[in-house]
Amino acid sequence: MVDPYSTLIGDLIDRLERLPGIGPKSAQRIAFHLLQTRDDEVSRLASSMIEARRQVRECVRCCNLAVLDECEICSNARRDRARVCVVEDPRDVFAIERTGAFNGLYHVLHGSLNPMEGIGPEELRISELLRRLSAEDIEEVILGTNPNLEGEATSMYLVRLLHDEGVAVTGLARGLPTGGDLEYADEVTLGRALLGRREFPAAEI
Amino acid sequence: MVDPYSTLIGDLIDRLERLPGIGPKSAQRIAFHLLQTRDDEVSRLASSMIEARRQVRECVRCCNLAVLDECEICSNARRDRARVCVVEDPRDVFAIERTGAFNGLYHVLHGSLNPMEGIGPEELRISELLRRLSAEDIEEVILGTNPNLEGEATSMYLVRLLHDEGVAVTGLARGLPTGGDLEYADEVTLGRALLGRREFPAAEI
Repeated sequence: MVDPYSTLIGDLIDRLERLPGIGPKSAQRIAFHLLQTRDDEVSRLASSMIEARRQVRECVRCCNLAVLDECEICSNARRDRARVCVVEDPRDVFAIERTGAFNGLYHVLHGSLNPMEGIGPEELRISELLRRLSAEDIEEVILGTNPNLEGEATSMYLVRLLHDEGVAVTGLARGLPTGGDLEYADEVTLGRALLGRREFPAAEI
Repeated sequence: MVDPYSTLIGDLIDRLERLPGIGPKSAQRIAFHLLQTRDDEVSRLASSMIEARRQVRECVRCCNLAVLDECEICSNARRDRARVCVVEDPRDVFAIERTGAFNGLYHVLHGSLNPMEGIGPEELRISELLRRLSAEDIEEVILGTNPNLEGEATSMYLVRLLHDEGVAVTGLARGLPTGGDLEYADEVTLGRALLGRREFPAAEI
């Protein structure tokens, strides 16, 4: 393809393409949009990126993203400090917070075990979790990894690792997603929903 | 939704959301990705944006994006200067260049007529086109606007405007797209393909 704009725009498109979920077409579209946007708008976006990157670090307690040493969740005195939900990614914290169903703390692993890509336990924030277990009064660790191969492997690894730590280790419930059609559920999900079937509590009958 | 990161990340997400094709979910995903990317990578993306925006301007001849006064197409002595293809957007130049089927020059309107959004002829680079017609030896103007309502309206406006300019005014062929199923073609496309049917040239029989 001819690049009628020297390497300047090509460079920008290349860099935009490295962002998650941005393919060649969208990278091109965004680049051209930026070139036709007001100067100061582009500068503001650029400095917002740099500023956020510079100021945001990992919370010293839970490894979530934070602006101060401790993230806002860890430094919130009204959270239940006996319960820690282990997740793979800071975005998962966002997702769980949105539910409003959890009032404990988090621990962010920053990834999942993936031997094929060379990600072992040392690449994750697992030693930080163990350190918390000895330093804090944690009663329950809720494993909130993704319901996929890597996430389940990570959970199984943690279950074994935490076996002797004297804490309850629980996992998120598996079953049919709300709002779906039984007919369209994949067989693994449906099988798990059957295996995990529950009696209706008396109050609901 | 709780924002556990003060307004810093929220700002970044907001700004990313203004980019074309980026919804709230992707903006969040990109923001978190940036926060976990190496410092210098983020700086390079940011300065690439600013640099491209600063150096790229409009070609004094065709209004396409250019790094020098004239874009690389206009300053290429091997292009056919008698033929000018009028397009709405710099991205359309990219698209036509990729085909390798056109060796003339371009003229970029930077939009299409859209009275509902207050975009009239003065908002487009139409006076620049008229100036070129009197200053250059142009024999044919090929209208390459988008095959939608606004694009067609823009073409019809230009057809009338260029009527007395002593140049041939042509439009891109309409018909069935290559690789599609006749069954799935919309009725307007199929109707136009019928109206625009052509005899097979003797060489093909």
